[in-house]
Amino acid sequence: MKKILVLGISGSIGRQTWQVIRQHPEEFQLVGASFGDNLELLPELLKEAHLTHIWVKSNDTRLALKVQYPKIRFYSGEEYMIDMVLDTEYDLLVNALVNFIGLKPTLAAIERKKNIALANKETLVVAGQFVLEACQRQQVSLLPIDSEHSAIFQCLQGNQRQDVKSITLTTSGGSFRDKSRAELKDVTVKEALQHPNWSMGCKITIDSATMMNKGFEVIEAHWLFGLPFKQIKVAIHRQAIVHSFVTYQDNCTIAQLATADMRVPIQFALSWPKRLEAPSHSELDLTKTPPLTFEAVDYDRFPLLALAYRVGEKKGNLPAVMNAANEVAVSYFLAEKIPFLAIEDIVIKTCDTIAYSPEVSLQDIYTWDGEGRRVAAEIAKEFLL
Amino acid sequence: MKKILVLGISGSIGRQTWQVIRQHPEEFQLVGASFGDNLELLPELLKEAHLTHIWVKSNDTRLALKVQYPKIRFYSGEEYMIDMVLDTEYDLLVNALVNFIGLKPTLAAIERKKNIALANKETLVVAGQFVLEACQRQQVSLLPIDSEHSAIFQCLQGNQRQDVKSITLTTSGGSFRDKSRAELKDVTVKEALQHPNWSMGCKITIDSATMMNKGFEVIEAHWLFGLPFKQIKVAIHRQAIVHSFVTYQDNCTIAQLATADMRVPIQFALSWPKRLEAPSHSELDLTKTPPLTFEAVDYDRFPLLALAYRVGEKKGNLPAVMNAANEVAVSYFLAEKIPFLAIEDIVIKTCDTIAYSPEVSLQDIYTWDGEGRRVAAEIAKEFLL
Repeated sequence: MKKILVLGISGSIGRQTWQVIRQHPEEFQLVGASFGDNLELLPELLKEAHLTHIWVKSNDTRLALKVQYPKIRFYSGEEYMIDMVLDTEYDLLVNALVNFIGLKPTLAAIERKKNIALANKETLVVAGQFVLEACQRQQVSLLPIDSEHSAIFQCLQGNQRQDVKSITLTTSGGSFRDKSRAELKDVTVKEALQHPNWSMGCKITIDSATMMNKGFEVIEAHWLFGLPFKQIKVAIHRQAIVHSFVTYQDNCTIAQLATADMRVPIQFALSWPKRLEAPSHSELDLTKTPPLTFEAVDYDRFPLLALAYRVGEKKGNLPAVMNAANEVAVSYFLAEKIPFLAIEDIVIKTCDTIAYSPEVSLQDIYTWDGEGRRVAAEIAKEFLL
Repeated sequence: MKKILVLGISGSIGRQTWQVIRQHPEEFQLVGASFGDNLELLPELLKEAHLTHIWVKSNDTRLALKVQYPKIRFYSGEEYMIDMVLDTEYDLLVNALVNFIGLKPTLAAIERKKNIALANKETLVVAGQFVLEACQRQQVSLLPIDSEHSAIFQCLQGNQRQDVKSITLTTSGGSFRDKSRAELKDVTVKEALQHPNWSMGCKITIDSATMMNKGFEVIEAHWLFGLPFKQIKVAIHRQAIVHSFVTYQDNCTIAQLATADMRVPIQFALSWPKRLEAPSHSELDLTKTPPLTFEAVDYDRFPLLALAYRVGEKKGNLPAVMNAANEVAVSYFLAEKIPFLAIEDIVIKTCDTIAYSPEVSLQDIYTWDGEGRRVAAEIAKEFLL
């Protein structure tokens, strides 16, 4: 029985993680969870799971729950999420938080030698070096939940890292894949949120349309698989069936294919190194899928993907700055304050404006994150609608 | 340095095996080889390789070579191929013989605890049970050279056999994949030999057109991977890029892709568990390939594939009989003695005519092979042009 602590259970990945856990009661037990604003899932979990530790956002909610469920330990407040990670007895931490907040709890779990299933991109994009160093020191496995990284991880099983020639992350191309940059001038938030293959949160859907998300994934892959950026490629694959592939030096390519259902990579992260039965809804019949196509990416069309390669190579303060600027820009776009293309301008200008600092400590990252947000907000003023 | 003995070096697979060995002089050394009628490669090997043992078909050739190369041990005669396998010092036996002759030498090598790289289908189709029992007893690895089985073997690396839901062997569909059975009535030998993707020998090209070859591969897969026939599927994949795939119980499919170059699977069998660099001619760029399609197989259109499933399930004398009947029928077709569709009729009728015998010894197989040939030749008389 694998005991699991899920950070961010109320989000899309968190809820699907709970579905996977519930489908395998012999294998998994949910012992702890952190909730965001949405407490919808809480009554079901209190009834069906055997939670020992729960983190909620609001202090009032925490106090109310504490009185009602005296056997469960409740936490609230950002710093106390680390306490939950330190106090709970579990085997695997699932980090499904949607932003930077997940970094410190993840590092705390690694220091406790707990394996980490990671859906939180920011953790690796911004602090990959620190997370990987900690994992290596504590001999902890970092298991990717992203469909692309799960695919690469699966295609690497049973092979030697030094035999890898390249890995290729596939991308559907996002909601605007067939629009030229000229056609992107006046696109609306509503149009941007119509992703062709996946139903995801707003932030990540916009990040897919700009391919900032794919850029984050390139940086994640660099850390997860210990590969230089020149060995990490991106290809447009509209059907979202081949989730990524590895090409070895003997010119064999190993690819992972599955339906576009996040429960597939979530389950692999939870069950690894085993594979467990999955419900039939996620079955893939290749004789019934459309033809599988792959296209090269135009980096001029998707400048944030090109930026991510440069930022990932240079490291230092740049990943934190890029991530912060992107968060600001996307939130402005979603609030209809700026046009779509201004996201790219703001992120690129912010990275160009802030002085490059090659050496950063873990604490510096928080500073650069703040600085990135401040400068991005400043630059955004030029683009206000 | 891996020392390699190649049975059947003068055939297509044998010659390509030599190319792979020569490309990796730090890794592989060819120490012995058997030649068929074609001795074209012999001078090159005598010059470039450091052969210690050589088998040739003709006794006269053997005696002539023995005088000329006193340091090399020469053999001739079918029984003496076993002697070569017993006398030579090597780490890996490559069985690239094109028919039934390869069985006894392979079994002799297994008894010496030598790993086997197997390109010879008949060995497993007809005597899979005996070969597998010997491999298990002697803890010998059986490494497939067929592109499909190499693909499956690669997709199984790092995974547990009990997690496999199904394996799917891909097939280009052969030279007549778009012809109906009615249209096959008058096809010529020349038309049949035009395979859409691979340049192969005559026998195997005809076996591809009837899908008897795919049927053999289904039976091979049954033995190689220890899977029941209901877990072994076939799909038409015209582009011959996805060489086969494995679907796991978590609904993840792992596929192997490569250019249609036999040196790729040959090299994997030689280098396993490592992967070595391959020359750039075999590089695959998925952004430049046609869309990848998969189609279900119509078993009424390809009755020999359906027959192979039944024969593989029933075992006993049937695999030997089916293989023998097919050899006779294909040789008659290639000699323009019978029409194309008669191949299927002869093989099916031979299997129906000969009484089913569930228990067979290794020696019985040779008897049933002879009986299959005799009955097939008898049945073929009905179909003579």
